[in-house]
Amino acid sequence: MNVENLFSNLPEALSEEIFETLLEKNNLKLERIISSGQSTPENDWYDQEKDEWVVLLKGKAGLRFENESEIIELTPGDHLVIPAHKKHRVEWTDQTQKTVWLTLHY
Amino acid sequence: MNVENLFSNLPEALSEEIFETLLEKNNLKLERIISSGQSTPENDWYDQEKDEWVVLLKGKAGLRFENESEIIELTPGDHLVIPAHKKHRVEWTDQTQKTVWLTLHY
Repeated sequence: MNVENLFSNLPEALSEEIFETLLEKNNLKLERIISSGQSTPENDWYDQEKDEWVVLLKGKAGLRFENESEIIELTPGDHLVIPAHKKHRVEWTDQTQKTVWLTLHY
Repeated sequence: MNVENLFSNLPEALSEEIFETLLEKNNLKLERIISSGQSTPENDWYDQEKDEWVVLLKGKAGLRFENESEIIELTPGDHLVIPAHKKHRVEWTDQTQKTVWLTLHY
């Protein structure tokens, strides 16, 4: 059996976020995302075709939903479902360490 | 948005493992499992209809596959795919703290 670790192979310096597909089958896609202080570009929103389950496993991030002023701070273990077409953006990610996310598009 | 945390609401004393469904849709089921030193009963094997992706997020566990003598020790972040009908068992889980798993049946 091939065992890998979600917290290993974290690159040292990242100018861009890394999206890595862990599983893909039928309508399902599981990804690991590694952020290094990036945020969604100003005035951009994610608007996705599918529901997404997301968990933050390391680091920290601020998530915002359209028409909501509150920024939701995510810390390790925090997870939520983002329904399809619920527009959202990542306002910030931790500047002092890598942030590791898992996202399941289903 | 309803944010929950994978590491909160861990019950104090557990006589049995806790299986909690986080998502269920079509052929997909995502579960959180909390173990407190349990193992698969002697001579029992899991033999599952679907492929399973599993990640250990907290604690430790020993996993064994049929016809293999080696016990694979899983520590936080370790993940693997267990193909359908690949018989496996949990030989042990951490006795000193809760072990938290995510499993995705797909």
